[in-house]
Amino acid sequence: MRVIRFKEPVSIVSFGSVASKKEAGGPLKSYFDVVNIDTSFGEKTWEKSESKIIKTAVDMALEKAKLKYSDVDVIFSGDLMNQCIASTFAIRDMNIPFLGLYGACSTMAESLCLGSVFINSGVINRAVCATSSHFCSSERQYRFPLEYASMRTPTSQWTVTGGGAVVLEKAENGPFITEILIGKVEDLGVTDQNNMGAAMAPAAASTLKTFFDETATAPDDYDAIFTGDLGSVGSELLYQLLEKDKINIRHKHHDCGVMIFNPKTQSNIHAGGSGCGCSASVLCSYILGQVKKGKLKNILFIATGALLSPTSVLQGESIPTIAHLVHISEERN
Amino acid sequence: MRVIRFKEPVSIVSFGSVASKKEAGGPLKSYFDVVNIDTSFGEKTWEKSESKIIKTAVDMALEKAKLKYSDVDVIFSGDLMNQCIASTFAIRDMNIPFLGLYGACSTMAESLCLGSVFINSGVINRAVCATSSHFCSSERQYRFPLEYASMRTPTSQWTVTGGGAVVLEKAENGPFITEILIGKVEDLGVTDQNNMGAAMAPAAASTLKTFFDETATAPDDYDAIFTGDLGSVGSELLYQLLEKDKINIRHKHHDCGVMIFNPKTQSNIHAGGSGCGCSASVLCSYILGQVKKGKLKNILFIATGALLSPTSVLQGESIPTIAHLVHISEERN
Repeated sequence: MRVIRFKEPVSIVSFGSVASKKEAGGPLKSYFDVVNIDTSFGEKTWEKSESKIIKTAVDMALEKAKLKYSDVDVIFSGDLMNQCIASTFAIRDMNIPFLGLYGACSTMAESLCLGSVFINSGVINRAVCATSSHFCSSERQYRFPLEYASMRTPTSQWTVTGGGAVVLEKAENGPFITEILIGKVEDLGVTDQNNMGAAMAPAAASTLKTFFDETATAPDDYDAIFTGDLGSVGSELLYQLLEKDKINIRHKHHDCGVMIFNPKTQSNIHAGGSGCGCSASVLCSYILGQVKKGKLKNILFIATGALLSPTSVLQGESIPTIAHLVHISEERN
Repeated sequence: MRVIRFKEPVSIVSFGSVASKKEAGGPLKSYFDVVNIDTSFGEKTWEKSESKIIKTAVDMALEKAKLKYSDVDVIFSGDLMNQCIASTFAIRDMNIPFLGLYGACSTMAESLCLGSVFINSGVINRAVCATSSHFCSSERQYRFPLEYASMRTPTSQWTVTGGGAVVLEKAENGPFITEILIGKVEDLGVTDQNNMGAAMAPAAASTLKTFFDETATAPDDYDAIFTGDLGSVGSELLYQLLEKDKINIRHKHHDCGVMIFNPKTQSNIHAGGSGCGCSASVLCSYILGQVKKGKLKNILFIATGALLSPTSVLQGESIPTIAHLVHISEERN
């Protein structure tokens, strides 16, 4: 059994989301806690702006729960920047024990997996799980300087400038994390770094199939299944892969990368949003908001990550990917 | 209380270490499981060589315990490469659930902290904790292309080409991980990336002082205290910082960065070894070997990490650092 089921479910006490101007131009505008008027967040470099996103998301989540930094036992955080500097510089001033993660765009689910095991085991009382991404810091690190104004391919995704943070505790009130499934690295040989959705779909399919098999459940047992961030291209591939195993999720599935932007009214979106901050900001705004209100009672959240680097791409390597699953329920079991 | 004490200590079932020619020229030569004749490990790029180091260390640790990849529930791994590609490409073919970490040179201790909590909590039965570094892949990513043959400053450290892996289980036989302490990010304003030891010493001091305070123990209660990788400059600073708090560790302390090379007979070592693979390869060869033989019965292992990036340095930022502690004992408590 790979599915980890918590005897004592872990409570999601609060959550905070941060987005920027472009994300606020999409359908989820009213759900974000903090929207900055531009991508600078008042900082002089994009890397510092991204650190500010993480700090703001954590501050917002803690504020909603009336907590201080000193109330947190461990913070689990990572991001897309080389050496995860968005996280390390954000957390530097918090004085909270820190475990740094690298899971690319799967980081929100990875941090929830780690945080929930720590809480469930009783070794700590309160965890914060956080991540971020920033369009400008990612573009210059992974692709081209923005000043080049490079054309983007139709399958490419737009890195979300945003982030999210979740506070976990062992508590009586939901929503609860009841189960998790840690992903395996999957690589079906996709080499196009402008088609991450296609690269990541097999990881999402593998994780979902394993979860349904081991729990003897089906898509209809859940109110919704959220992936992040396959985009429109990767989502269609996910459906096709699962249909080979006679699993149909089309009527239950939403992808954070598809949800966050409106490609009809917003330019250059192409296949959808991406980046750690995409699934994080959508989870910590719309998704958990709907669960908290009881409009969604039982959901699966699967964040996918492409574990490549610009160096591995230049060396001709294909793209290793991963998908971690978090089962979130209004009820304790 | 920040110290996490396991009611049921976690057993270190086996461990494997890998090193290269230069490390084998130092005092620990006879302790490494695998020594490659050069830094290539038979691969065409340094990044692939580094992946091979992780794979070889994991294979060695599993082989000693007569285990297969399929016997492992989760592998915790990270490295210094951008987007941790040494780990992700090494683990791609193992088909083991994977949680990626970024803790710079603190990764070996970070992975042991995470792995031991997972094992202790009972959510999984067996974990592998691994990390690596490679002189050539690090030099070109962090500093200059090797072809420049740049001069190195006296306080600089030499990135170890090596790695280590540990298999953890809940079992009857030691050595055991009995306690862990997760570090906080410390930054006293050091900006010289060629003096990582000085930057990281405050993190090690803070973690050690907290541990001694909370456990009401003193250096004399342990057979040895191993840090990695402060080097000679950072070690002296660690002594001075702890002496301000009336804690003297000089007679118990060894630094993995100082232990691994002999600066009198080996060129360009300067302040000592560094890199995730330094503390990993020393832990998984000499240190755990001595504990297994009963020559060391009760030790502290503190791996330190500098959480900077070349971008943060160019932007004039100081260096955030961290130190995680693992208490390893021959006995269960």
